[in-house]
Amino acid sequence: MTRGRFITLEGGEGAGKSTQAARLVEALERQGRRVIRTREPGGSKGAEDIRGLVVRGDAERWSARTEALLMFAARSDHLERTIRPALERGEWVICDRFADSSRVYQGVAGGLDPDFIEALDEAVVGPDQPDLTLIFDLPVETGLARAGTRAGDEDRFEGKGAAFHARLAEGFRDLPRRFPGRCVLIDASGDPDAVSARVMAAVEARLG
Amino acid sequence: MTRGRFITLEGGEGAGKSTQAARLVEALERQGRRVIRTREPGGSKGAEDIRGLVVRGDAERWSARTEALLMFAARSDHLERTIRPALERGEWVICDRFADSSRVYQGVAGGLDPDFIEALDEAVVGPDQPDLTLIFDLPVETGLARAGTRAGDEDRFEGKGAAFHARLAEGFRDLPRRFPGRCVLIDASGDPDAVSARVMAAVEARLG
Repeated sequence: MTRGRFITLEGGEGAGKSTQAARLVEALERQGRRVIRTREPGGSKGAEDIRGLVVRGDAERWSARTEALLMFAARSDHLERTIRPALERGEWVICDRFADSSRVYQGVAGGLDPDFIEALDEAVVGPDQPDLTLIFDLPVETGLARAGTRAGDEDRFEGKGAAFHARLAEGFRDLPRRFPGRCVLIDASGDPDAVSARVMAAVEARLG
Repeated sequence: MTRGRFITLEGGEGAGKSTQAARLVEALERQGRRVIRTREPGGSKGAEDIRGLVVRGDAERWSARTEALLMFAARSDHLERTIRPALERGEWVICDRFADSSRVYQGVAGGLDPDFIEALDEAVVGPDQPDLTLIFDLPVETGLARAGTRAGDEDRFEGKGAAFHARLAEGFRDLPRRFPGRCVLIDASGDPDAVSARVMAAVEARLG
């Protein structure tokens, strides 16, 4: 059994990751691949329970350190119960946010020591790094305007203010420099068909 | 302002830690000290929210790795919002369970790599190690019989089986060898007055 491939989608709020994840799954299924779509925080029963704690409530509810530990706890469960079993069954895993969101939200924007995040990543993710990470890049104002029109109460991170979101954008844009073998910046502006075409070109180029 | 002292109580289920914590607080207050009593998992608003996830539900709900991350997430919030502010105000902190419970429950009994737990402890607890840790030692069967008569649904760890609880007891008994400057074994058998006398003797001997 050939192990599946692991593709993560990253970027700030309202960058269109969910829409593009759904389109990517459809495109890969049309190629005859077996694919699961998942997301973080969440993606397994236990991780969804933890998600409830981190995406709701006041922006200052958790420090960056506590938040990183909660995110990696959810990630640990998600890997053990959803991602690794799917990859071992030969399925492709398309995941909306993963460890790079911890690097950028709690690290770059939250001010947490990057060495601590890398130590957590080594212990929790270990060798199961994504094969490809697509980083959706969009002007901060455009993304927040899109995110602000969503229904629901999962708005804790939207409440963190303009300076935080500007640091997020810088942090995401810097990832291809930090992880050049894995991360590709995708221009997320324009209509969804144009963005999808850029996504599929990147997937073909990196994973054939 | 003299920094307060930090005393933790550790041991398996039903060892009488809560009763002894309450008595220790009373005894220290009679000596004129300002004291807060707290417990883990929990002890702050956020940490109590996390407690709800870890102490309820099926024994296999979380892996040892995920459980350790949740425990240290709760501990991070507890330290930031309850323990460190109290110590800085000069108060003594009496805490029912702390990082040694992670060493023993997720490490010794749960099989998690001890180096991972020490890395979490270094990042989360850092220099704020307890000044004194009292380890309540009782035959496993006696403790589980006592714990089993408690009301409520916080019984996830009681459900982990006899072999797990035997490893717990060994792990707790081994702590004074691992941390001789801080950990004292307390014979928790006999009536509560006799145990209290042993506790106060240890506190006097170590913290004057």
